Amino acid sequence: MDVYISGVGMTKFGRSKDPLQQMMAEAASSALKNAQLDRVDAIYMGVMSVEEFVGDSNFATLLADTLGLTGVPSTRIETASSTGAGAFEAAFYAVASGHMRHVLALAGEKMTHLPTAKTTRILSEVIDRSERRYGATMPALAAMIAQKYAQEFNLSSMKLEDILAQVAIKNHSNGYFNPFAQFRKTITKDDYLKSQTVSYPLRLYDCAPITDGASAIVLTSEPAPIKVSGIGHATDTAAVRHRASFTSFNSTKEAAQKAYIMAQLNPSDIQFAEVHDAFTPFEIIGTEDLGFFLPGEGWKALEENVTQLRGRLPINPSGGLKARGHPVGASGLAQLVEIVYQLGGEAGPERQLARAEVGLAQSIGGLGNNNLVTILERADRKRILKEGWTPDYHPEIKVLKKRPASEPSEGTGTLETFTTLYSTPEGFLSPLTLAYVRTDGGEVVMACNPDYRSPRELKMGKKVYFKTREGLYVFEKLSLWSRLKRRFKKQP
Amino acid sequence: MDVYISGVGMTKFGRSKDPLQQMMAEAASSALKNAQLDRVDAIYMGVMSVEEFVGDSNFATLLADTLGLTGVPSTRIETASSTGAGAFEAAFYAVASGHMRHVLALAGEKMTHLPTAKTTRILSEVIDRSERRYGATMPALAAMIAQKYAQEFNLSSMKLEDILAQVAIKNHSNGYFNPFAQFRKTITKDDYLKSQTVSYPLRLYDCAPITDGASAIVLTSEPAPIKVSGIGHATDTAAVRHRASFTSFNSTKEAAQKAYIMAQLNPSDIQFAEVHDAFTPFEIIGTEDLGFFLPGEGWKALEENVTQLRGRLPINPSGGLKARGHPVGASGLAQLVEIVYQLGGEAGPERQLARAEVGLAQSIGGLGNNNLVTILERADRKRILKEGWTPDYHPEIKVLKKRPASEPSEGTGTLETFTTLYSTPEGFLSPLTLAYVRTDGGEVVMACNPDYRSPRELKMGKKVYFKTREGLYVFEKLSLWSRLKRRFKKQP
Repeated sequence: MDVYISGVGMTKFGRSKDPLQQMMAEAASSALKNAQLDRVDAIYMGVMSVEEFVGDSNFATLLADTLGLTGVPSTRIETASSTGAGAFEAAFYAVASGHMRHVLALAGEKMTHLPTAKTTRILSEVIDRSERRYGATMPALAAMIAQKYAQEFNLSSMKLEDILAQVAIKNHSNGYFNPFAQFRKTITKDDYLKSQTVSYPLRLYDCAPITDGASAIVLTSEPAPIKVSGIGHATDTAAVRHRASFTSFNSTKEAAQKAYIMAQLNPSDIQFAEVHDAFTPFEIIGTEDLGFFLPGEGWKALEENVTQLRGRLPINPSGGLKARGHPVGASGLAQLVEIVYQLGGEAGPERQLARAEVGLAQSIGGLGNNNLVTILERADRKRILKEGWTPDYHPEIKVLKKRPASEPSEGTGTLETFTTLYSTPEGFLSPLTLAYVRTDGGEVVMACNPDYRSPRELKMGKKVYFKTREGLYVFEKLSLWSRLKRRFKKQP
Repeated sequence: MDVYISGVGMTKFGRSKDPLQQMMAEAASSALKNAQLDRVDAIYMGVMSVEEFVGDSNFATLLADTLGLTGVPSTRIETASSTGAGAFEAAFYAVASGHMRHVLALAGEKMTHLPTAKTTRILSEVIDRSERRYGATMPALAAMIAQKYAQEFNLSSMKLEDILAQVAIKNHSNGYFNPFAQFRKTITKDDYLKSQTVSYPLRLYDCAPITDGASAIVLTSEPAPIKVSGIGHATDTAAVRHRASFTSFNSTKEAAQKAYIMAQLNPSDIQFAEVHDAFTPFEIIGTEDLGFFLPGEGWKALEENVTQLRGRLPINPSGGLKARGHPVGASGLAQLVEIVYQLGGEAGPERQLARAEVGLAQSIGGLGNNNLVTILERADRKRILKEGWTPDYHPEIKVLKKRPASEPSEGTGTLETFTTLYSTPEGFLSPLTLAYVRTDGGEVVMACNPDYRSPRELKMGKKVYFKTREGLYVFEKLSLWSRLKRRFKKQP
């Protein structure tokens, strides 16, 4: 059964004094009003860490009751930071099954009321325990991915800095015109350079902010102007080190492939997209993973203004997670609200795109391991789906042939990538240098060294020695290690 | 599209040393092996409070990876203590949509590793904040419902005790034969009477235990011997005091109605059922809400052995949550695993029912506010679904005409129901007497009085005075209040 969209709504993103259920009710009410409905057959609501952020569980029930929809089935959906897109997907299948006519997808998160250290801890719990125990945070892992991207595609650190700044500047410029955005200010390269380093090379302006917000969409089986054309969803390894590539996300590529096939569309058919930019490098990588640009060429498209609001393929016309804000559970659905506004010609004069008949949203859950891709389309765009249609998108899914059964207790290897983390989680001294080390045996291990005070002391690809100490790998430049070993020997 | 079941699996319930993901992988592996599959199109996995019990989030991803199904879409589902049934429902719609062929529904919880006080706190978070802040726990609310049931249907406290004991004895007797059950021991009335009072009138043997466990079912669109005939899901008010009845659950009745209509079956067609007996009174109420017996007559059917393993309508042949154990996220799916075993003739000689062609499972989320009813049937039971079929199940859905906009700061009323709670949550002295007071204005408020040391000091229907103190209502027998008031007056 075909699935359409009959209403959308969202709160202004930012800092809110309202309880979460009230923010979500506000978004839902707009969407229901928009759809001219006062009841739905079911609610799928996404919150990522409501127990920890807010201290309530059974939130799906509370929501239905707060909405005045007591009785209506209500299910909580969670796929980490792609939760909002997950709620939309569950609602899609409920309608597509033919058992339900009108279904409300709803998503939100309340985060700003907690101290940042606590929020960082909660957000870090999406990271696999084996990497989290090193003090790894989401910005730290994203930073290591950014470094690896620069190395793999031969970008100098200054070039990388320049590209990431451009993503931030573009998205802030788009967000300036978005009434729902948390940040409605443009930023300059100078502002970017002045912002503090969170985890080298990522600065504060490379990271989406901590935000309160909610978004809602009503899905229906009754023909309406906007149609859901395709949905894809895929996971990847829990631990980042278990991946064959650090510069693309299999989960985006597999999800995109499924969405393109369901929609019978190719990347070249997509006119604009909302791409998960919780960290600026993810926007570049996302545009490559989605097949818009070749691997290693996303940054060129950015430089050539292709992804600007008035470019050929606008990316994040809403301002993205960067400027609209990132209430973790809500973002995936808020991206789709933006697509609906654009397709409906309701994005406002400054942001409205001229070509807006097919839009795509990509949402990342966790560190790129629970991603969804959703394609929406104007229903009046007459296309006939053909039997035997074949896609021209064939992404390369890189997986480790074999995951090591056990990791070596010590050895030598090379610095696959590293970061110096300045905003460390509770219990970890700052700065903290973290690395992925490719051992001479070929597997990748996470390792740390709190003695390095600056990323300038290290270089990608350098030979290192690593050793287990108190259950964690520590690493050291091989040159230093011999000296250290001598020092150790002198001790009794 | 019709939906069938091609495989089931579960772990032994009880205390486990394995990490949650490993327990869930064990259940999933059995189900996949059973279904002769090594991959599925999606995973819907239910865990209720994994962040708090285990300290991980992004668990859907971890699960897919642990299962060796890296890449497969994985979504976490949560509807409080009915989570397992919620995961099954989401999987059902995914297959019914025609977009997916084989889907794994998976559910689990790990609880026994934490101190009981902490577990109680986590479980209490499903209770609406406005009632939880009085120190209300799940057993306390269930106890008040049991008391009200006895009053409404004229059962003496000794009669009530006897009935509740019979539920416990029956379910322990069934669980004795279930290799997956946590408790494989029969209990006597004497054992029951010796068990400590948790919240008067409920004893330890009236409450499901704290349990680790996981269960799994593979759903498929390919015809298989067991078919999903009907699914219904409904919510109720977050706060219990906002309900028009305390002796039945609207959410069960609405969910059942939907399930019966989808299946084109009546309560009289159901041959056996798994009914959510987290607390023994809930089994009695459940069998009435499901239309098996008239309101107030569930206990008679129990007394007449109708619901025994060899009775006309066996309830909880598995031993129920009471004896099989209650890993909160897993129970709703474990009930369905039992139905599948019975329908397939695989329940073992002691437990196998002679008539097992249509079975029903009812799962309660929260304090009866996020409930699901699922009906499974042997596919070889030839029935033709008819246009215009009408059900003979027409439950009475009682709702408050109008919820009070604000509650009075003091006044008089009657004791609608009450309990004395002995196992209080952290921060509350024991014993703690809690009550629902029906004010003279007609609304119901929760109130407490820590001075009552025994339930024998109070009586249902008694006149009381209530007053706000430090943001909570305290109540006092009207006769005592005048004395108390004088004492208050003496204070400055």
